[in-house]
Amino acid sequence: MKARIHITLKPGVLDPQGKAIANALGNLGFQGVDSVRQGKFLEIDLAESDPAKARADVNAMCEGLLANLVIEDYAVEVSE
Amino acid sequence: MKARIHITLKPGVLDPQGKAIANALGNLGFQGVDSVRQGKFLEIDLAESDPAKARADVNAMCEGLLANLVIEDYAVEVSE
Repeated sequence: MKARIHITLKPGVLDPQGKAIANALGNLGFQGVDSVRQGKFLEIDLAESDPAKARADVNAMCEGLLANLVIEDYAVEVSE
Repeated sequence: MKARIHITLKPGVLDPQGKAIANALGNLGFQGVDSVRQGKFLEIDLAESDPAKARADVNAMCEGLLANLVIEDYAVEVSE
């Protein structure tokens, strides 16, 4: 199975990297950029073939290692 | 409009960060992780209200600043 994971900062958590990107876009002449939020995107290939078990495994990976749950949210999509 | 951008390494480009994550997951006892690829995920709020123009702007941003087209691919989704 393949898992696609989005890890994003929780709303309200400052995102200096996103702010820097927004400023850089403004300096390059791109008008009308109201805000930029940067997150992480992970694609994991799993040997597991049961979707429910794969999703449970990936949730455990996110909570144990991949996401910092104090400041980050994660979303998991599992596909064949 | 909102744009969601995925920036991923092209197939074949080495991903040491993904490799490190795969090793760390193995060390934590997660079996059956065949590979991990790490990418970036950006959410941009745009003042532009025309979807076609917003998409063209975001493509230009990706090509000018956000993605390194030598080693990275990008995908853009635009929504209300």
